[in-house]
Amino acid sequence: MTTQQTTPTSLPVRSLEPTGAEVPSTVPTHWYNLAADLPEPVPPHLHPGTREPLTPDDLAPLFPLSLVQQEVTTERYVEIPQTVREIYALWRPSPLVRARRLERALGTPARVYYKYEGVSPVGSHKPNTAVAQAYYNALEGTTKLTTETGAGQWGASLSFAGALLGLEVEVWQVRASYDAKPYRRAQMEVYGGVCHPSPSDLTEAGRAMLAADPDTTGSLGMAISEAVETAAKDPAAHYALGSVLNHVMLHQSVIGQEALVQLDEAGEGAPDVVFGCAGGGSNLAGLTFPFLGRNLREGTTTRLVACEPAACPSLTQGEYRYDFGDVAGLTPLLKMHTLGKDFVPPAIHAGGLRYHGMSPMVSHAVNLGLMEATAVEQDDAFAAGTLFARAEGIIPAPESTHAVAAAIAHARAATEPEVIVLGLSGNGVLDLPAYAAYV
Amino acid sequence: MTTQQTTPTSLPVRSLEPTGAEVPSTVPTHWYNLAADLPEPVPPHLHPGTREPLTPDDLAPLFPLSLVQQEVTTERYVEIPQTVREIYALWRPSPLVRARRLERALGTPARVYYKYEGVSPVGSHKPNTAVAQAYYNALEGTTKLTTETGAGQWGASLSFAGALLGLEVEVWQVRASYDAKPYRRAQMEVYGGVCHPSPSDLTEAGRAMLAADPDTTGSLGMAISEAVETAAKDPAAHYALGSVLNHVMLHQSVIGQEALVQLDEAGEGAPDVVFGCAGGGSNLAGLTFPFLGRNLREGTTTRLVACEPAACPSLTQGEYRYDFGDVAGLTPLLKMHTLGKDFVPPAIHAGGLRYHGMSPMVSHAVNLGLMEATAVEQDDAFAAGTLFARAEGIIPAPESTHAVAAAIAHARAATEPEVIVLGLSGNGVLDLPAYAAYV
Ligand SMILES: Cc1ncc(COP(=O)(O)O)c(C=O)c1O
Ligand SMILES: Cc1ncc(COP(=O)(O)O)c(C=O)c1O
Repeated sequence: MTTQQTTPTSLPVRSLEPTGAEVPSTVPTHWYNLAADLPEPVPPHLHPGTREPLTPDDLAPLFPLSLVQQEVTTERYVEIPQTVREIYALWRPSPLVRARRLERALGTPARVYYKYEGVSPVGSHKPNTAVAQAYYNALEGTTKLTTETGAGQWGASLSFAGALLGLEVEVWQVRASYDAKPYRRAQMEVYGGVCHPSPSDLTEAGRAMLAADPDTTGSLGMAISEAVETAAKDPAAHYALGSVLNHVMLHQSVIGQEALVQLDEAGEGAPDVVFGCAGGGSNLAGLTFPFLGRNLREGTTTRLVACEPAACPSLTQGEYRYDFGDVAGLTPLLKMHTLGKDFVPPAIHAGGLRYHGMSPMVSHAVNLGLMEATAVEQDDAFAAGTLFARAEGIIPAPESTHAVAAAIAHARAATEPEVIVLGLSGNGVLDLPAYAAYV
Repeated sequence: MTTQQTTPTSLPVRSLEPTGAEVPSTVPTHWYNLAADLPEPVPPHLHPGTREPLTPDDLAPLFPLSLVQQEVTTERYVEIPQTVREIYALWRPSPLVRARRLERALGTPARVYYKYEGVSPVGSHKPNTAVAQAYYNALEGTTKLTTETGAGQWGASLSFAGALLGLEVEVWQVRASYDAKPYRRAQMEVYGGVCHPSPSDLTEAGRAMLAADPDTTGSLGMAISEAVETAAKDPAAHYALGSVLNHVMLHQSVIGQEALVQLDEAGEGAPDVVFGCAGGGSNLAGLTFPFLGRNLREGTTTRLVACEPAACPSLTQGEYRYDFGDVAGLTPLLKMHTLGKDFVPPAIHAGGLRYHGMSPMVSHAVNLGLMEATAVEQDDAFAAGTLFARAEGIIPAPESTHAVAAAIAHARAATEPEVIVLGLSGNGVLDLPAYAAYV
């Protein structure tokens, strides 16, 4: 199976075979699925017309069969294809580092560890699922993937995965970010991706939104409508979502699985508390679900805390009910914490946290009392990010600073030598102007 | 020793003591010094007034004693302080990766490895020496470091090191880059560094240059003059140079030392050829000198190739003679390949390669026929960088693409299964607009 691309530097060969690279044994061989350990099943997604649980056929126009199956499986472990493991090994296992200089600066008796996903080629956790989704699509004959992106992390991740696995990638980027973040667009283009501002006049949904408000700066919900519509109309194309859905949570589980092993190797037992930022919930789920599974199976009592922006507080302020994932109502109905599909979050710098809803699996876990949630103000987040940068050297992504702020507050208050794990979902290199505005 | 800084997020405590972090044994314990193995000594730096070899006293206003000693030592190994090793361990050992997808795309029988320094917090090899220089300065009581920067990699690296080790950092950035690259300036500021455009009206040298040409876009040579003048006038301040000098080559040797061990672990013998880009020569020296030392001591025959831009070809077109490191003639005279201190290189995207001179150690090695040099056109460099990005996922820094281009050309021509090592000195995340212009 080959796909000839246009630019001279493109790789003409779609190569899904493993290259034979040695993959460290510390890169997981299976994804972990929390659904196997939950005391009550995750509420199913519903067909938007019938309000009946979705059938695999309903999803076939959008996703390849393997991902449709992963969306509903309750198997505890799903094997990771070797080709995907090889690509993971370009940056995985990601480091788990004890933040000793931060501890010293805070004067805390706690031991603070950060799990750092910013080492991936695009600088965040998003490639963990992008590579998996591109792989299954390529395997089943898809030649093009469409998606939406906000700040651009996800569009860049999918473009990266498309380049390595021989798929065209077409991205709708929220207009405000498209204009404000030319670096991310360039990143997509270097990987051969094509990026449009959303709303665009390329889709019915986009034209309708432009007609309703020609000056709209767009939203993730609008961009999803455009990407879904395009994929649904093109038999060779599928759609890829960077968060929210169950199969995305599955793919991200490599984060937490590695962290469990790395903490063991560091001689720590179950940590006292784990903090992760949550937009659609995939970084949070990836980091925390393996700990939550152990809590459920083995009775450990690690606290798991979702950190969301005070400006877009789906878990702490939203309703738990069925809602659409997009503005036009083209997606299935998802049972989730939601601020309502028409909620347009303020233009905070953490673009990846500006989503009206939340992963159904995360929402369910929070609803069952298995996880907690906290909201963080933007200024506190940047202050924490700057402190972290000056102590540990890494400038966290604005999204990640929400977890940093919560973890630092917790560490400052600690009076005992407890163990804190903090998810650093990405680096802030392409968000430096936002920091400059703060500093 | 404490230093109180002003912003609330600064770390008030200068902490030079090791934290007790475990450092992997794969992080070198000593720097390697090529001077110990050279068949002829490196020509000494000369006093600009007397033209006599410099005495330690001549350098004392600019550098701490330990660095002055490292500048002239002929010991083969210099111990790395544990505090420096601990900071190195935040990203070291840096990965050595076999570029199997690139090999497949090129259809080459060669095995191509890349050594990737872009995993450091600022995205290049520069922190390897920034941390060392900040450490020795802090240890000897310096409270402030001054430096110049072009594209900003070095200024950001020194600001990073200053943040972790409790030093103020003041940077003069070449005017053209200061205006064009706000992200790097923001990076310096997040780390607490202060950045001025150069020429500035803060120094005599700067005022003279502005008087001569009020619209000048600056050059590294001019910025060096300003930083040197400022440090020389302030007894609590010292100057830090990011390349060129012998002690910088020494600190960068961790790159090549790790690569030697990693190649061994991969079951490879001495590689056939190593490619590294060269601006002032520190990445090249760091990567290649440990291989060159082995050639000299053990008779291995690894070829070592400096890759420079065709637009600033000091090694391939410059004269080998004594010249100043800066425009104003404030630095010592260095025996090096030079295009002349007043040479203003065209505004190529690889800002880190826009320097009129070249490390005296590298120049000496090339002059003795121990290393080779090749010049690469900018378009070929970007084409190679894009190809690399789409095959391996990492977008190389524009500087690094010069080595990528040379290595790819070599691999394409290969007819035998030889071993190629390619130095990826940094990532191109903050140079994406330059790529966009190319793509
Ligand atoms: C660095 C980073 N962290 C977190 C998020 C939030 O997404 P999610 O909640 O799916 O992890 C994003 C989204 O783009 C991101 O880029
Ligand atoms: C990524 C990168 N590579 C290479 C260089 C060139 O410097 P040197 O020749 O000292 O390694 C620079 C300088 O800033 C750089 O940033």
